[in-house]
Amino acid sequence: MNRKIIYLDHAATVPVLPEVLEKMLPYFTQQYGNPSAVYRIGVENRTAIEKARDTAAAAINVQPSEIYFTSCGTEADNWALIAGAEAFVSKGRHIITSAIEHHAVLRTCQYLEEHGFEVTYLQPDHDGVIHPEALEAAIREDTILVSIMYANNEIGTIEPIEALARTAHRHGIPFHTDAVQAFCKLPIDAKAAGIDMMSVSAHKIGGPKGVGFLYIRKGLRLRSFLHGGSQERGRRAGTENVPGIVGFGEAIRLALASMEENAIRERHLRDRLVNGILEGIPYTRCSSTAENCLPGLANICFCHTDADSLLILLDMAGICVSAGSACTSGSLDPSHVLLAAGLSHEDAKSSVRFTIGPENTEEEIDTVLTRLKEAAAKLRSNSASYKKFIASQEETL
Amino acid sequence: MNRKIIYLDHAATVPVLPEVLEKMLPYFTQQYGNPSAVYRIGVENRTAIEKARDTAAAAINVQPSEIYFTSCGTEADNWALIAGAEAFVSKGRHIITSAIEHHAVLRTCQYLEEHGFEVTYLQPDHDGVIHPEALEAAIREDTILVSIMYANNEIGTIEPIEALARTAHRHGIPFHTDAVQAFCKLPIDAKAAGIDMMSVSAHKIGGPKGVGFLYIRKGLRLRSFLHGGSQERGRRAGTENVPGIVGFGEAIRLALASMEENAIRERHLRDRLVNGILEGIPYTRCSSTAENCLPGLANICFCHTDADSLLILLDMAGICVSAGSACTSGSLDPSHVLLAAGLSHEDAKSSVRFTIGPENTEEEIDTVLTRLKEAAAKLRSNSASYKKFIASQEETL
Repeated sequence: MNRKIIYLDHAATVPVLPEVLEKMLPYFTQQYGNPSAVYRIGVENRTAIEKARDTAAAAINVQPSEIYFTSCGTEADNWALIAGAEAFVSKGRHIITSAIEHHAVLRTCQYLEEHGFEVTYLQPDHDGVIHPEALEAAIREDTILVSIMYANNEIGTIEPIEALARTAHRHGIPFHTDAVQAFCKLPIDAKAAGIDMMSVSAHKIGGPKGVGFLYIRKGLRLRSFLHGGSQERGRRAGTENVPGIVGFGEAIRLALASMEENAIRERHLRDRLVNGILEGIPYTRCSSTAENCLPGLANICFCHTDADSLLILLDMAGICVSAGSACTSGSLDPSHVLLAAGLSHEDAKSSVRFTIGPENTEEEIDTVLTRLKEAAAKLRSNSASYKKFIASQEETL
Repeated sequence: MNRKIIYLDHAATVPVLPEVLEKMLPYFTQQYGNPSAVYRIGVENRTAIEKARDTAAAAINVQPSEIYFTSCGTEADNWALIAGAEAFVSKGRHIITSAIEHHAVLRTCQYLEEHGFEVTYLQPDHDGVIHPEALEAAIREDTILVSIMYANNEIGTIEPIEALARTAHRHGIPFHTDAVQAFCKLPIDAKAAGIDMMSVSAHKIGGPKGVGFLYIRKGLRLRSFLHGGSQERGRRAGTENVPGIVGFGEAIRLALASMEENAIRERHLRDRLVNGILEGIPYTRCSSTAENCLPGLANICFCHTDADSLLILLDMAGICVSAGSACTSGSLDPSHVLLAAGLSHEDAKSSVRFTIGPENTEEEIDTVLTRLKEAAAKLRSNSASYKKFIASQEETL
């Protein structure tokens, strides 16, 4: 079905790698034992889970006993924030996050606000950077938790995580980061960076949907998020998703092995795409401008076009891209990230996110450039605001 | 690896059916689009999820819009109880459940007790039945939620759900049931039975681990359990486990189609097993004695043996059975269900649960009977308490 598709939405999800699926397959129909069971086919699955846990822990330089598998990055974020807030409520009720977090963090913060907590949303600069000075200024006596994402999912900004964590720690405040977009894209040393909790998802790196993990630093006492059986050392109940966890482990192994090479490739294709757009299509601007940016991500404003319409035209040409986070598509509101980075409502509604993956090619990028030119021209030819803008430009000349 | 295994632990988990896996496969590597995306390969996955939702809803006679996919039965239980308790807290803080629930319910109730709620744990009779009269007697002015399992996972008792729900409703109290063991084993009409919330898991019926659902009756306003993106109509955030949900749908379809036939087969094999044990091995007793009992379940006390040792001997003979819930195995405590049903600590620690599935055969049952006889004899020959007991018996003669 996807034979002719050019997929440039790798931040939304990526296909499971064939090698990953192969590792998962036996665990569906043959090695199906419940990992909590005492017989061999149960014990073997417990061993398989621990192997994946070792891989996950090594990937961010922490101990296996600090990794807790969850059903997704969203669950990990909810767990970290809700249980984190509860754990330290005796010290205060103030939480600091940023205005450009994923909704898994923002909506959880809103939930906490409805339950007696107060949340400060740090504003980024125009590159999407959350500055440690801004965090320092926001910290209060009653601040109990800081959560800043590792890398932004819409404009790719890699945040100064070490400095942010250090700032929080200077005040004795635990630091959580949503690393869903950064994990296996950037080298992460959670220990060295001073991260106390970190959320990760499998399906962004070639693993299956339905698995993630939360890293919880040893010594940080966090309640269970799901109560029940004694899985995950009594901290995350529910029969383990064995094939999913095994696949996650294999995906981490593969992603780490090709991380550097992929980053170089993706950066090259991203630059080709961005330059091609900015040079070839008038009235376009790049919003993913941070010096430290995810290698494969570009966010472009096609002024005087409606991004949703652009997406439809591109889809008709077999090209998959998105306007911001997949989790909020269908929403009529412009991206909260682009607004926070200083774009106008109009420009935010004209912005498209391209995220490149390891299977993309120069030929694909060139095809996308051609189709983009056609699509932008088509939409603008029907746009009253564009015509008015051009007329005003011509008057000025 | 499982070629020689006789698997009699179907209540713990079952293999994914080959037809289910086949339906899932394309969604890993080819049809991988994020269901929230606007392009075709996203929209198609949204459609696939809705098809599974239709199947799930039809299976229990509710509307598709009342089904919310979760990561497991445990998540569904946690959601129903925690969000249910929060939703009605203005009316009171008293919750009623039973002493024989799965830990996903019991531990969640304990969590609620630590957060200002009061929980009454109804005791069953010796058959494991929770009587509506006992519920009626426990209901107070401030009771806001009742949760009683549909069928017990250790002794198989099918509870009088309609009468229990009716009792709760007479007092205007919503009724939740953990139907993880009953779903697709018994005909369930959630509408007719007056169930307001129902938890279900995929991996007990031939679907994959890592998926479940919570049915929430329309009109029951329950907060999201996972906050974030707008998946599941804004009530369960997190990128959908598309292959898992598709597999779940197919597993439901297949399980329903063979439900009656399987029940007859399983009941026959169960009776063969139970009669074989009670007639062939001295000092054994059946604890799964309810008139309404899950068809494939038998819980047997092998007096004067240690169940854990019995499990090991059986495992060495390639036979997989368990001592109670898989989720609590490894625990040194005797089963809370067997204790509640009136067994002594000693008898509870000598009890083994057998759960039969569609692939088991008469030959397998007969092999198990032979191995059980050998194993029980071996353990008893080394048991001081058994020798003492026999000596006392002989004295009496």
